[in-house]
Amino acid sequence: MAGNTFGTVFKITTWGESHGKGVGVVVDGCPPGLKLDESVIQPFMDRRKPGGSIASTRRKEPDTAVIMSGVFEGRTTGTPIAIMMVNKDADSSAYKPYADLYRPGHGDITYDAKYGFRDWRGGGRSSARETAARVAGGAVAGSLLRAFGVHVRAYTVALGGIIADPAKMTGDPDQNAFRCPDHDAAAEMEKRVDLVRKQGDSLGGVVEIKATGLPAGIGEPVFDKLDADLAGAIMSIGAVKGVEIGSGFAAASKTGSEHNDPITPEGFSSNNAGGILAGVSNGDEIIVRAAVKPIPSISIPQNTIDRSGAPATISVKGRHDISAIPRINVVCEAMTCLVLADHLLRQQAIVSSIFNKPEQTRRTHGTNP
Amino acid sequence: MAGNTFGTVFKITTWGESHGKGVGVVVDGCPPGLKLDESVIQPFMDRRKPGGSIASTRRKEPDTAVIMSGVFEGRTTGTPIAIMMVNKDADSSAYKPYADLYRPGHGDITYDAKYGFRDWRGGGRSSARETAARVAGGAVAGSLLRAFGVHVRAYTVALGGIIADPAKMTGDPDQNAFRCPDHDAAAEMEKRVDLVRKQGDSLGGVVEIKATGLPAGIGEPVFDKLDADLAGAIMSIGAVKGVEIGSGFAAASKTGSEHNDPITPEGFSSNNAGGILAGVSNGDEIIVRAAVKPIPSISIPQNTIDRSGAPATISVKGRHDISAIPRINVVCEAMTCLVLADHLLRQQAIVSSIFNKPEQTRRTHGTNP
Amino acid sequence: MAGNTFGTVFKITTWGESHGKGVGVVVDGCPPGLKLDESVIQPFMDRRKPGGSIASTRRKEPDTAVIMSGVFEGRTTGTPIAIMMVNKDADSSAYKPYADLYRPGHGDITYDAKYGFRDWRGGGRSSARETAARVAGGAVAGSLLRAFGVHVRAYTVALGGIIADPAKMTGDPDQNAFRCPDHDAAAEMEKRVDLVRKQGDSLGGVVEIKATGLPAGIGEPVFDKLDADLAGAIMSIGAVKGVEIGSGFAAASKTGSEHNDPITPEGFSSNNAGGILAGVSNGDEIIVRAAVKPIPSISIPQNTIDRSGAPATISVKGRHDISAIPRINVVCEAMTCLVLADHLLRQQAIVSSIFNKPEQTRRTHGTNP
Amino acid sequence: MAGNTFGTVFKITTWGESHGKGVGVVVDGCPPGLKLDESVIQPFMDRRKPGGSIASTRRKEPDTAVIMSGVFEGRTTGTPIAIMMVNKDADSSAYKPYADLYRPGHGDITYDAKYGFRDWRGGGRSSARETAARVAGGAVAGSLLRAFGVHVRAYTVALGGIIADPAKMTGDPDQNAFRCPDHDAAAEMEKRVDLVRKQGDSLGGVVEIKATGLPAGIGEPVFDKLDADLAGAIMSIGAVKGVEIGSGFAAASKTGSEHNDPITPEGFSSNNAGGILAGVSNGDEIIVRAAVKPIPSISIPQNTIDRSGAPATISVKGRHDISAIPRINVVCEAMTCLVLADHLLRQQAIVSSIFNKPEQTRRTHGTNP
Repeated sequence: MAGNTFGTVFKITTWGESHGKGVGVVVDGCPPGLKLDESVIQPFMDRRKPGGSIASTRRKEPDTAVIMSGVFEGRTTGTPIAIMMVNKDADSSAYKPYADLYRPGHGDITYDAKYGFRDWRGGGRSSARETAARVAGGAVAGSLLRAFGVHVRAYTVALGGIIADPAKMTGDPDQNAFRCPDHDAAAEMEKRVDLVRKQGDSLGGVVEIKATGLPAGIGEPVFDKLDADLAGAIMSIGAVKGVEIGSGFAAASKTGSEHNDPITPEGFSSNNAGGILAGVSNGDEIIVRAAVKPIPSISIPQNTIDRSGAPATISVKGRHDISAIPRINVVCEAMTCLVLADHLLRQQAIVSSIFNKPEQTRRTHGTNP
Repeated sequence: MAGNTFGTVFKITTWGESHGKGVGVVVDGCPPGLKLDESVIQPFMDRRKPGGSIASTRRKEPDTAVIMSGVFEGRTTGTPIAIMMVNKDADSSAYKPYADLYRPGHGDITYDAKYGFRDWRGGGRSSARETAARVAGGAVAGSLLRAFGVHVRAYTVALGGIIADPAKMTGDPDQNAFRCPDHDAAAEMEKRVDLVRKQGDSLGGVVEIKATGLPAGIGEPVFDKLDADLAGAIMSIGAVKGVEIGSGFAAASKTGSEHNDPITPEGFSSNNAGGILAGVSNGDEIIVRAAVKPIPSISIPQNTIDRSGAPATISVKGRHDISAIPRINVVCEAMTCLVLADHLLRQQAIVSSIFNKPEQTRRTHGTNP
Repeated sequence: MAGNTFGTVFKITTWGESHGKGVGVVVDGCPPGLKLDESVIQPFMDRRKPGGSIASTRRKEPDTAVIMSGVFEGRTTGTPIAIMMVNKDADSSAYKPYADLYRPGHGDITYDAKYGFRDWRGGGRSSARETAARVAGGAVAGSLLRAFGVHVRAYTVALGGIIADPAKMTGDPDQNAFRCPDHDAAAEMEKRVDLVRKQGDSLGGVVEIKATGLPAGIGEPVFDKLDADLAGAIMSIGAVKGVEIGSGFAAASKTGSEHNDPITPEGFSSNNAGGILAGVSNGDEIIVRAAVKPIPSISIPQNTIDRSGAPATISVKGRHDISAIPRINVVCEAMTCLVLADHLLRQQAIVSSIFNKPEQTRRTHGTNP
Repeated sequence: MAGNTFGTVFKITTWGESHGKGVGVVVDGCPPGLKLDESVIQPFMDRRKPGGSIASTRRKEPDTAVIMSGVFEGRTTGTPIAIMMVNKDADSSAYKPYADLYRPGHGDITYDAKYGFRDWRGGGRSSARETAARVAGGAVAGSLLRAFGVHVRAYTVALGGIIADPAKMTGDPDQNAFRCPDHDAAAEMEKRVDLVRKQGDSLGGVVEIKATGLPAGIGEPVFDKLDADLAGAIMSIGAVKGVEIGSGFAAASKTGSEHNDPITPEGFSSNNAGGILAGVSNGDEIIVRAAVKPIPSISIPQNTIDRSGAPATISVKGRHDISAIPRINVVCEAMTCLVLADHLLRQQAIVSSIFNKPEQTRRTHGTNP
């Protein structure tokens, strides 16, 4: 109820703070017999690690994932899988000056309001470092999904106002530093980041997540709709301010005849639905987009108050990213994997006891609008 | 796990189909001693009822809410509050022609994939009629919130491509048929709806929800952030394709210095945060926007398939709304009330045992961007 | 969290008070396609109804179960199944004299402490009438279990100090009024009840529940062990003060060599385990026993206090059972069915994705110790 | 859903196997500001450690608890508290001979049925070593309870058929090696254990748990009754076969006039209720008893089968306890603390918003029957 557990059948519980002893995750509900060792998890940790682009922090955490339980002779046993990453490069001294100040755009003020005090070192539990545990858990979920033929990838479709065209994607979206499928846009993004860094400012953007291979029939009416759970999952990532599925906000200005995806024997002719109808997957690609706000830690001076309520000025100097993108992309993938793995298993709970065999499910590879 | 329960402490479970015997809700976890009778609930049911605008269906359901349990001598007892609305005007014959066809944009095809068969009468459980039960539950949550000084209202900020200016709101947003705070825009909306109705088509739009009076400190890191739970709640409403908090998607093209809300002794100078920082309320107004897709039931002929997979053409003739707006507005309010009431009680579970008294919480009435 | 929902995948939520408008249950998570109508449920309601034995109350409730949702053309749809029983014979006047007194052995004093006030009519939510909703939900669970080949029955093994021999059971345990497999003991019980009724007193007893046909592998380590969930379920029935599995309390004075059930190629040679090892079913019969306290409503005068704390004497005169047995037996069956159905579906969530095929499960029909 | 999380508001998730890298617990929902460091937890770990009596295993685990997160400057922050104990003395070679055999009375056969294979080293997840994590979590819950004035202790009331008289308790029940309040009985128990050890056999017993200081009004009707949750919690401990509250099974042969606890202005005159009426605490002492089966690992040869189903004989030689008592006592305390802490916080969620002030709660120190 304190909110550190996510999922229903495939479930993770995370722990850890930015400058504590480490961060970790307990994965509960993973089916037994799945091949798993650290080599499955580490590549995802590495994609989240700082240093991948000029937009990222200079803190150096190896984020070496260690599996503590739940795996025997290279396979999951069906019991809890604990994974831990020890903190190596926490430097709390840089945060000492802000211990009594509220950094604008951060959770300092709200954590104090909620808990009465806070671990100010590196943002404590509100730090994006917490997402390392999500990525470790998401890596296990992703591995399970691949065994079902489901693949999830996230890529950058906007950064600092520069819009990329996802239709230009050829192969791995991680080919450039911004994990942007549109190489021309990526080049523009690099210039923009370079400029803003010099200004001591930061940037937001948009990430798109695509899941392929998900069968129709996944998702639970009425509150645990697949899109509802995806929206909650993505919005639970610190920097996200908006989530849309398929056509998203563009749907608001369309007519029904424009927006409905026609159905043919070969599948859907378009994918405004983003692969979800009435909260249940329709066999098409799942398309989710996340609006990411600019990193709130900037060196430009800002007005704030201290813990006593007195006015103050703050200039945040630590080792911060310029943008949560592209490191956040793998976090978006992780949360998507967690939702899809959970709902696949939820459907299994009823599907093998369906007394009236379901229709053959239908699939399509309709293009994303 | 089948997804018909929502909430953690303040919790609702809904049941019922469009053309079954009725719809209902069980509210569990409402504190004892709250004044409650049907007169508190019915006004919310009436605001959801069809007939309020030219955009709505001609089905006539009185939606008379009857409290079956949990109230004694006009006050809640702390035990489950069951509320029921009997269906009166279900006419399944109009749906018979579509019993073996998949209506584009509807859940017909996904329910068949999920369950193996479906109750095709009026869409069964996937019908928007299900939201009547949410509104009844939300009315109880809203009543609890008002006792805490929290008020929630939704209003139309876009319909069919016509954009309203919420800053023009004076008093009750329900003053016009579209529940639009901008009367000039509402006049334009009426013309647009009139035209589209004649074309046999339908329209989408955007609803904004505002909550005032919520104290700082509400919301649970890390997965059950207040914004995450709001996003999931709003996206669980059938027609919603996107959700944003505060600045939302606009945040993606801002810099940190533009986006951070400066803090002053009097409160925040702006409200890009939408009242939430790091998943916890900051005492400012909570601002949420929902993108609503056009009603998928249109009389314009569309391509589809039947249950055997053969191609077909469909023209949906029933008694349908032209737009889910404005009836959906009260559903958005209900879901917001449910999230806020739940999180207020969740905070109570820890707050009275906080061993280190929390700081005085700070409030502001910063304008919404 | 307020405790009116039970189960994880197969889940029920109940509502209603003794003298309110009725009692009901929402069953969520029942797989689609199961044959269901009122005729499946009513026989269980009738077995719980008063009037079946001289030990029972004279209140006459037909307890006619009405299915409000979740069934279409005689089969479950996979959506919530709401079932309702309207109260017909509530006579609150008999309770008026006790509105300000705390009946010893009842929840009057604790409900006041918890909620600040209470619905005193017939005990409100703390009345055994609440179990009617459990029985309706349990009837659906039982129907699902029978489709899996699992059968659950409860029978009386002790009443008022008279011990029955369950080994004497031949066929249906409901053959006599006390639902006791040992007809000689039942005759003694009748005499005992007759005597105690004249004394204005009441009696306790022991119910045994047996489930056959449950495959091995059901139950979840470590907290949701099958025996843990059964113990919680049975103890949640108002009058129950003790629960034991298999050998139960007798295990405490045995040695390991006496208690371990030897394993043979044909199955277990004994069933001290009660069909459960390490929280997981072993394929043998599940054996549970419940200690039932005497009905606290007695006409013999007792010392108590009123709401102001002043001493008082009370003699409870209403229409009460002499013993919760045998009406409670079907409630014990219902709770057992709910636990087993839930855990069967929980196992399905992982079993169809087991990447390493499970061993052929083994079964036995070892005699109960 | 896989069952490794316990609790609702105050919640623990455990992980780890007997011979894996370690065992651990994540405590979520502990209120902020509670004083906590390893010195609060370690004494409970030490009481669970082997070596305390001649009944215990010779495996030497220091069980040093390390707090990994959730504590800042000696106080809980309100975020997850991860605690870890590294395994030091695991010797899997002793288990190699049983890798393909099913030990009678153990979960070997049921884990294989459930998961398709198992970690056979020391029993894997089904080992009692798992309870170390419960004790660490229970220590945090116990610390929270003490801040509320609630104290929980367990003591031995029977071992190997020797019955102790709890009325003889003077001070700390841990004064003798069997944690038995009756020193004469303890001396008999020692002789019995000595004899049975030489026979290569093992013993069961009964543990009683007493909680003092719990206010009236704690517990949630109807499924999450305080006694129901206690029964489930205690039964979830591996060796437990029966649970009773207050009078327990003795209630079955009493009359209502004998069993009802009379109420006086000074409190209850007796405590057959065990401190719980209608699932809600009545302010009196909470009394729970657990029946503990004999340790199934015995060196006396037993009949069993191997994984192929072929008959075999087994003599289990490892480093095993003769009885789970008295090491299990602290595990019983831990589970009781977890239930009480959780329910106290659950009550807080509604109590501070009770609009009708609850009656002054009443307390008594009635003697346990």
